[in-house]
Amino acid sequence: MFKISEIIHEIDMRSGNRLKSECLGGAEHAVVTRFGPLEAAEADQVAFLAQKKYRDAAKQSRAGVLVISPEDREAMYGVSDPGRAVVVTANPYAWFAWAVQAMLHEPHESRGAMPGSFVDASAKVDPTATIEPGATVKAGAVIGSRTVVKAGAYVGEATVVGEDCILYPNVVIYHRCKIGSRVIIHSGAVIGADGFGFAPFMGEWVKIPQVGGVTIGDDVEIGANTTIDRGAIEDTVVGKGSKIDNQIQLGHNCRVGEHTVMAACTGVAGSTHIGSHCMIGGAAMINGHISIPDGCMVGPATSLMSWDPKARAMMGFFPAQEQRAFERSAVMVMNLSNMRKQIKALQAQVEALEKASADKA
Amino acid sequence: MFKISEIIHEIDMRSGNRLKSECLGGAEHAVVTRFGPLEAAEADQVAFLAQKKYRDAAKQSRAGVLVISPEDREAMYGVSDPGRAVVVTANPYAWFAWAVQAMLHEPHESRGAMPGSFVDASAKVDPTATIEPGATVKAGAVIGSRTVVKAGAYVGEATVVGEDCILYPNVVIYHRCKIGSRVIIHSGAVIGADGFGFAPFMGEWVKIPQVGGVTIGDDVEIGANTTIDRGAIEDTVVGKGSKIDNQIQLGHNCRVGEHTVMAACTGVAGSTHIGSHCMIGGAAMINGHISIPDGCMVGPATSLMSWDPKARAMMGFFPAQEQRAFERSAVMVMNLSNMRKQIKALQAQVEALEKASADKA
Amino acid sequence: MFKISEIIHEIDMRSGNRLKSECLGGAEHAVVTRFGPLEAAEADQVAFLAQKKYRDAAKQSRAGVLVISPEDREAMYGVSDPGRAVVVTANPYAWFAWAVQAMLHEPHESRGAMPGSFVDASAKVDPTATIEPGATVKAGAVIGSRTVVKAGAYVGEATVVGEDCILYPNVVIYHRCKIGSRVIIHSGAVIGADGFGFAPFMGEWVKIPQVGGVTIGDDVEIGANTTIDRGAIEDTVVGKGSKIDNQIQLGHNCRVGEHTVMAACTGVAGSTHIGSHCMIGGAAMINGHISIPDGCMVGPATSLMSWDPKARAMMGFFPAQEQRAFERSAVMVMNLSNMRKQIKALQAQVEALEKASADKA
Repeated sequence: MFKISEIIHEIDMRSGNRLKSECLGGAEHAVVTRFGPLEAAEADQVAFLAQKKYRDAAKQSRAGVLVISPEDREAMYGVSDPGRAVVVTANPYAWFAWAVQAMLHEPHESRGAMPGSFVDASAKVDPTATIEPGATVKAGAVIGSRTVVKAGAYVGEATVVGEDCILYPNVVIYHRCKIGSRVIIHSGAVIGADGFGFAPFMGEWVKIPQVGGVTIGDDVEIGANTTIDRGAIEDTVVGKGSKIDNQIQLGHNCRVGEHTVMAACTGVAGSTHIGSHCMIGGAAMINGHISIPDGCMVGPATSLMSWDPKARAMMGFFPAQEQRAFERSAVMVMNLSNMRKQIKALQAQVEALEKASADKA
Repeated sequence: MFKISEIIHEIDMRSGNRLKSECLGGAEHAVVTRFGPLEAAEADQVAFLAQKKYRDAAKQSRAGVLVISPEDREAMYGVSDPGRAVVVTANPYAWFAWAVQAMLHEPHESRGAMPGSFVDASAKVDPTATIEPGATVKAGAVIGSRTVVKAGAYVGEATVVGEDCILYPNVVIYHRCKIGSRVIIHSGAVIGADGFGFAPFMGEWVKIPQVGGVTIGDDVEIGANTTIDRGAIEDTVVGKGSKIDNQIQLGHNCRVGEHTVMAACTGVAGSTHIGSHCMIGGAAMINGHISIPDGCMVGPATSLMSWDPKARAMMGFFPAQEQRAFERSAVMVMNLSNMRKQIKALQAQVEALEKASADKA
Repeated sequence: MFKISEIIHEIDMRSGNRLKSECLGGAEHAVVTRFGPLEAAEADQVAFLAQKKYRDAAKQSRAGVLVISPEDREAMYGVSDPGRAVVVTANPYAWFAWAVQAMLHEPHESRGAMPGSFVDASAKVDPTATIEPGATVKAGAVIGSRTVVKAGAYVGEATVVGEDCILYPNVVIYHRCKIGSRVIIHSGAVIGADGFGFAPFMGEWVKIPQVGGVTIGDDVEIGANTTIDRGAIEDTVVGKGSKIDNQIQLGHNCRVGEHTVMAACTGVAGSTHIGSHCMIGGAAMINGHISIPDGCMVGPATSLMSWDPKARAMMGFFPAQEQRAFERSAVMVMNLSNMRKQIKALQAQVEALEKASADKA
């Protein structure tokens, strides 16, 4: 049971008072149990309108509380009283996200270093943190307030983890990395493994020790089985608020800006810089030593070898077709130079014909 | 030492009596130690004929027992007695698979929650199950009969794991997931991490809590370091008998049907439905919110953005070529609009010439 | 504080006396604290010249010691005395790599099986090895001298790990694998999970037990979250000195030669052989059952279905373009057969025109 007024109070806090809520029809006094879809929500549920094409469904919804934008409000009710409990907010979708966060929030239990955990005597674990059985915190590491290090997770020597973080089971963070506050790292992610650096010598490869670390900003989320290598000399960096999906590889010395999202299975080779507020599609393959400007987009499944400075979005993948159609397309792509030769021959022939025709005239 | 009659008994059980075996030449009494290739197998070995092009090799094989299909039998021996120990079965390859399973089978050792494991007092672990040292079973979780949770594996709160499963070392299953029976999950796989869902707000990203779970059907196998995200509201689902290779990513709300195989390194974005009896090639990249019908095929390395309803198989990848040939092809692909312009210009010129020629005639 | 003479002594040892160092200007007596870039290095630092375009920067560098090649030496100083501390060596980059290794070297601490580790009584752990708390070594496994098995890492039954290896936290090596000496395996890597082998039977899939193992040669490095499956019958093999980056998948029965490098996110399907001294680009997708000869190159993001025996390097990916340009290219690639028809029609028309023109003449 959640009072809308309490949810709004939580949203004010979580959004830093940046997302205002206006209550109409007594919405502030309404009590709900959970969210529901517009069509199915009942009197004890709150529903939100994400796209204007669903305005009719919203008007007919039996949801106890409706969350809509000012534009929806005007289009649906004009200046008249909605006659029902309505919350008007500039961004109903973000309102929904924060409201669900608030409704699901469970108080943090401070358990400290639990029996069965392996915490070095020289590590500094905040007394409000929780280190689960089977988790490891090595010498000189620092674990901030209310941070949870779950079973099998590992925090290496001298690594610093901020406040209110969650390291899910079997996360590994190598030595001398810096993790901000409110960072979520999902299981199997590996932060700070050695970058891939070798000097060629007589047909063999000599390892170049990787002495940089990894720095992760506040409010970053890192997906399951993602790998972010430590820098060769300086740190590999992910800026605050960026969201990195599962099975992503960030090579050594990469820098990702702030509030950038990267979808799953993407690989980024070493020393590439991705700006802030970028969107990187899933399964993209991004070459090393390139720079992607702020606010730009890389398409899914795109092999990006360099950035075209005139572009805001770059994309490239072979279009999938019915199998035999594809096989024909593939053969023709390999024979494009023949096609070009045929066109050139035709151009010469046609020119000769035109000349002959003109001569005759 | 295995008697063929005992192996056949095991195959009857494992196949649910669906794969019959006919013994000729006293095969049922033969005793073998293991399988061997047709050419090298000796009298203590059993060999099987997988393709008809090896029938001559099979006839000449010194294997103690030969496993062949009815068609092979007829082609190789007609109506006459083979004069050697032969097993005739409709599917020699499946016979081989089950026979090896039977020959390698080791009785399950029920060890319960072993010392050094971290099993919550409220978890229900079947007394015949084994929870190895270093493994974790959280509050309210259920572990079925004869299931083995190996070292470092983690079963989250209220997750249910069926009977006869193997969770290899360092598998992670988050809270509130459902795993069927006879499921094999290989090391490093992560089941039930949060789906990648964020609401945009003033250039930042607000996390949408992922309240669904993951449901895995009976007889599923999941490869090493594969990730299957929990659903946003409903469960992400993998149907019974499906086989999911290594390093596969299934986004939130995906549904995979029954007896579908997916080869390694494939990524599937959120809310995509893959039918039953599908085959998905390795390193495919499948877009979100699409449906792949039952029995269909996606080629390897294919970027699939939508499904062509007329297709049974879809494919698309840039054909690899010798490096310089590729570089020329790539340039020409980017200049295809020029080529098209040249063709149009030629068409106009030729039409004019034809018209002029007709006018003259 | 490191004396250059001591560093050179270490390089002699690490390179097997294959990388000679000649000291000029008293370089052998110099004492440095660390490496620095040419422009910024001070008197207590050593700097190296990697490319001849930086020769001027090197001459002006205030580094206490300069490491250059014989060609650099001649170009920069001719036959005259450099007038400063200089080390001349055939491969300054490899010199740098070994020198940093020597400077960062920390003596191994032999701790044996530490409290909190799970070491089977029948495992043979060399007394100079270290098994960290939370690590597992199963029955019959062998751990060589000075090898470190870090927290949460797992060595399966009868697996043999050589000397001076590092298994980082949460590495998993299944049963009956063989790991050479001086092998580094990064966190989350899984060695020896079952290969993806199933026999089709009445629309279902019957598991083929994978009875081979994995053999890893000396001096191999394996990246974080990489997976190398065990062979179906024989071993999957990675030859000595090869370097395998993060998130790579090697299918069952693959063989990788010696001193080959594979960049991150690459997948190799089963039974493919990659030669020695090959270079495989990142995010390549290599089909099964093919052979890549020694010394060959596969480009990044390349889908390799077969090897062209005339090629030394193969490559293929759709070139990324500005989004709308790409969309046009993609449509045209799918319509190449129309383009070809138009060219053929033009060829016929032009031929007819030429004939008509010739007839008239």
